[in-house]
Amino acid sequence: MFLSELIPLSEASAILKKNQIIMPKETIDLTDSYLRVLSEEIKSFHDSPPFDKSAMDGYAVIAENTFGASSNLIKKIKIIDQIGAGDFSDKLINEGEAIRIATGAPIPNGANAVLMEEYTITTKNENDDEIIEIHSQVTPGENVADFAEDIKKGEKIVSKNTLIRPQEMGLIASAGLDKVEVYQKPRIKLITTGNELVEPSKKLDRAQIINSNQYVIGSMIKSCGADVNVGHAHDRIEEVKKTILNDSNNYDVIITTGGTAISKGDVVVDAVESLGEVLFHGVALRPGKPVAFGIVNSTPIFMLSGYPVGAMGQFDALVREYLFKMQNIDYSPRIEKRISSAKIYSNLGRTDFIRAYADENNVKYVLNRGSGIIRSMVEANSYIVVDENQEGIDKGEIVNVLFFDLMNWNR
Amino acid sequence: MFLSELIPLSEASAILKKNQIIMPKETIDLTDSYLRVLSEEIKSFHDSPPFDKSAMDGYAVIAENTFGASSNLIKKIKIIDQIGAGDFSDKLINEGEAIRIATGAPIPNGANAVLMEEYTITTKNENDDEIIEIHSQVTPGENVADFAEDIKKGEKIVSKNTLIRPQEMGLIASAGLDKVEVYQKPRIKLITTGNELVEPSKKLDRAQIINSNQYVIGSMIKSCGADVNVGHAHDRIEEVKKTILNDSNNYDVIITTGGTAISKGDVVVDAVESLGEVLFHGVALRPGKPVAFGIVNSTPIFMLSGYPVGAMGQFDALVREYLFKMQNIDYSPRIEKRISSAKIYSNLGRTDFIRAYADENNVKYVLNRGSGIIRSMVEANSYIVVDENQEGIDKGEIVNVLFFDLMNWNR
Repeated sequence: MFLSELIPLSEASAILKKNQIIMPKETIDLTDSYLRVLSEEIKSFHDSPPFDKSAMDGYAVIAENTFGASSNLIKKIKIIDQIGAGDFSDKLINEGEAIRIATGAPIPNGANAVLMEEYTITTKNENDDEIIEIHSQVTPGENVADFAEDIKKGEKIVSKNTLIRPQEMGLIASAGLDKVEVYQKPRIKLITTGNELVEPSKKLDRAQIINSNQYVIGSMIKSCGADVNVGHAHDRIEEVKKTILNDSNNYDVIITTGGTAISKGDVVVDAVESLGEVLFHGVALRPGKPVAFGIVNSTPIFMLSGYPVGAMGQFDALVREYLFKMQNIDYSPRIEKRISSAKIYSNLGRTDFIRAYADENNVKYVLNRGSGIIRSMVEANSYIVVDENQEGIDKGEIVNVLFFDLMNWNR
Repeated sequence: MFLSELIPLSEASAILKKNQIIMPKETIDLTDSYLRVLSEEIKSFHDSPPFDKSAMDGYAVIAENTFGASSNLIKKIKIIDQIGAGDFSDKLINEGEAIRIATGAPIPNGANAVLMEEYTITTKNENDDEIIEIHSQVTPGENVADFAEDIKKGEKIVSKNTLIRPQEMGLIASAGLDKVEVYQKPRIKLITTGNELVEPSKKLDRAQIINSNQYVIGSMIKSCGADVNVGHAHDRIEEVKKTILNDSNNYDVIITTGGTAISKGDVVVDAVESLGEVLFHGVALRPGKPVAFGIVNSTPIFMLSGYPVGAMGQFDALVREYLFKMQNIDYSPRIEKRISSAKIYSNLGRTDFIRAYADENNVKYVLNRGSGIIRSMVEANSYIVVDENQEGIDKGEIVNVLFFDLMNWNR
């Protein structure tokens, strides 16, 4: 099958949307849930705090007893008990009494405020009772975290489809849960193809090319929160068919790179067509025009270029969003605006992802010699994205910039 | 030891800088190097491409033989060989001859361009030789990736202290390396303290509080590219001392949370002081004033609040940068500008990290009821950072916003 007609990127995206698969759910330990996506709504089993709680080390008092206290008017209050963290007291505080209290401990009955330790001096009275001298007043409720002020029992605290950050983990723990239900991580098979490909080595034979896609695309898959297993196939249609058919039983998605063999069209696309269905082949995208998508055995297959930079462009334009959505994450890349330092040529109807370096104000494309040039991606920190309905950009014009570091999972 | 005098955040940062430790190096497989930091400069063992390479499926030709060809003036050229990917041909191309060539294959001797397959029709001549009919001309060098155009042998291609992204992995592989030298991942011991803390559970006894810091701070440590091991200690100075001393032999950094016990000052700070040195205790920071830093047995110790939101603020203001720098990553958070939708009160001399929700244009603080309120962090997506030399912010004023998702390792 040859690239017949290029479809616009928007049409390719619509085809992917129609064929989006969503991962099933699994229950995991909360400890392992960082950057996973909740597949359930979380309700709290507890009120939080579970009691009126001291927010300071100090003395639980009746606030009114401290009114008017200052360094000129010292008030004296008797200490009748003490409460450490994890401890409590059943004593009732009466007029003129206080209980020493640790941060986090429950406020004892009768008290309505906590006076910070710093504003008191401890001493004894004539009966050898422990006494504090108060130099400062507190208002009712001061330094007290009220019962249930953070969370009410039974209340919904985290929504389904939320990416779990540190703070969600803390809130879920406080709700009483040490396990959560999340979407399974997508298992991706990456198949690099090409007879010329060899492992990195200090010595290469004639016509050999190092297989860099296994690293480049492999880590891009990881950056989407998915697991990857890498394999290789030669440019022989029977070998490619066998590999794809086998992997379609064991993985959620297959991604291939390369596989263009002389006079035989694209062996990978041909293999997918003979095993299942090719839904598009060729997108008006630069770099990355020769990209295809198909389905074999209910398994989606993205067929990317053998050229690393082409494959990266295809991944960023098409695959990334699909892998996120498998975990129910809506991927809307944060586009930033910058001033273009140079004129950029582009064709109507084609979407360009131009390797570029952007600073706080400006952006300039990185010298671009071909789609094989990984080096241009190393020198770049962003893409200038030229939409399909834009025909080039003038020097000084405001352009849309997509920073590589804002495209990651962990953002 | 009590909080005596608060030092400004800038002074605390300077003390940390003076006591910064850097991780030793290790050699790992390139496959495992995603998001690690190179501790060596990378030079290439190869020219890349290692030969003049075809960038298209088509025919290696003498460009001049195609000049003038069009659909009105079809030229005929004889095919003398074919080269698949990973293959090569020793035949010399003479006038009127071509060799069929696959993408990625070496350009044969005599040829200087590749004519795309799409612009040709194959046929036979009267001698039954294979012939292509050419409908289009190519310029010399067209569809050829030149020898060494991407990388020259011996050339420096990636600098020391570079964060390894997918493209760096690809470039390093192309250079001939399947192993890299990187800084070791920092091993962090997180010790939560507090007698009141229990594991998440649907039933709590009186005065018990769920230990959420193990999750919150544990995952924040992971977000800095470090490994974490979590332990717990009760608020007893001998237990805390024993734990810290033991962990100081096995970890690169210790981070504690909580440990404020009634009338005994801060057991953790006291423990560190008796075992080693406390370099600061109390920073003009909100939330997060009660934060300390010390050294025991050459091991840096960050002592954070027991309150999750206080501890998060302290981590973001002080710890994050330190953990990055251990791996030689200069952490300069990307500050964005937004319009404040509300008036904000702040004191001169104190740095405020105000939990906030920002959209594309505006930012507003999230209702803030205390430093224990993890919920406010779940509702927030950013901090409004009010500098120590700023005294509050008016409604409508432009403020500095630090997005949580721009603070991560993987950005």
